[in-house]
Amino acid sequence: MDQYPRLLQDAVEQMATLPGIGRRTALRLVLDLLKRSEDSVDAFGNAFIRMRRDICTCTECGNLSESAICSVCADPGRDASKLCIVEDIRDVIAIEHTRQFKGRYHVLGGLISPMDGVGPQDLNIDGLEKRLNGTVDEIILALNTTMEGDTTTFYIYKRIRDKGVAITTLARGMSVGSELEYTDELTLGRSIQQRTPYENTLAR
Amino acid sequence: MDQYPRLLQDAVEQMATLPGIGRRTALRLVLDLLKRSEDSVDAFGNAFIRMRRDICTCTECGNLSESAICSVCADPGRDASKLCIVEDIRDVIAIEHTRQFKGRYHVLGGLISPMDGVGPQDLNIDGLEKRLNGTVDEIILALNTTMEGDTTTFYIYKRIRDKGVAITTLARGMSVGSELEYTDELTLGRSIQQRTPYENTLAR
Repeated sequence: MDQYPRLLQDAVEQMATLPGIGRRTALRLVLDLLKRSEDSVDAFGNAFIRMRRDICTCTECGNLSESAICSVCADPGRDASKLCIVEDIRDVIAIEHTRQFKGRYHVLGGLISPMDGVGPQDLNIDGLEKRLNGTVDEIILALNTTMEGDTTTFYIYKRIRDKGVAITTLARGMSVGSELEYTDELTLGRSIQQRTPYENTLAR
Repeated sequence: MDQYPRLLQDAVEQMATLPGIGRRTALRLVLDLLKRSEDSVDAFGNAFIRMRRDICTCTECGNLSESAICSVCADPGRDASKLCIVEDIRDVIAIEHTRQFKGRYHVLGGLISPMDGVGPQDLNIDGLEKRLNGTVDEIILALNTTMEGDTTTFYIYKRIRDKGVAITTLARGMSVGSELEYTDELTLGRSIQQRTPYENTLAR
């Protein structure tokens, strides 16, 4: 015996397809599953299968949803004139938790990343253009400030700048609660360049 | 929308049951699965379900196997008089890779660990006693040198010391290729105490 049984090997290979999980970690996780009851492992495996089969993307905004229209798009109380462009559902939840945004979202499903073979055609950008039909008057670009995020922001800006909507982006600057001397130069530089009237920070 | 769709939530909760995977990592892994094809996620989930259902433990040694008797126990070329006691299949594979052991194994399926609620009755120790029926003349205790490993080693030693078999344990000492000044005190102390005749190290 110089190798693992085939069924174990298969399970390890599947586990190791997850990002950041190497073969040794995968083996440890799979051996943990083997110690559980059959029912519990059925529930484990089927949770992913069921999720992939039954979860849908909202036909309006592209967010993950249990129904054809997600709860934000279906809510008549949300301001349809403001669209916040985000990468995925995690960003929607993060912004919702701030309770500072009452408009709607548009979920791209990723960022342009030539290294990973992701181009504009793989993202939900055509869907965004279709939504710019008169009701929308502001697009808020809320993507990560990484290379991929900035590239995607610029690409979308170029595609929609002539559509007659205001295009804004999240404010960059010092984090709330951070200290000046520990703030990185780029961020501090931006904070000085784009300083805001003090009165505006009071009127929240 | 201030929470994730239920199907996504279920999948994240299942993923987070794996040891060392927190909820944030689980969400990242599950979103990666969502980007794959339905067939690919079916294969992912079913690999674990099939493994748990169809993999057996060898009735002789307790190792994971595809058949009732594992390939080591079924091999007439292996020396049945020497049993190497190990924690799980990973240790079997590690020892097999050294090509230095031609006996058979006995797999405990864990280590005694009161913290995790694992007692001697949860391990394959009764099976070990049953195998000490005359053909076995040496038991090699090859468990980790952790607290759990040492506890288990001592427990097994007490259970079988009167069975008339030689009981040995893996040599402890400096790793091959390591430097004296960086070796920890306990290990170096053991290496001096249990120094071996130089000739023995030549005769490999």
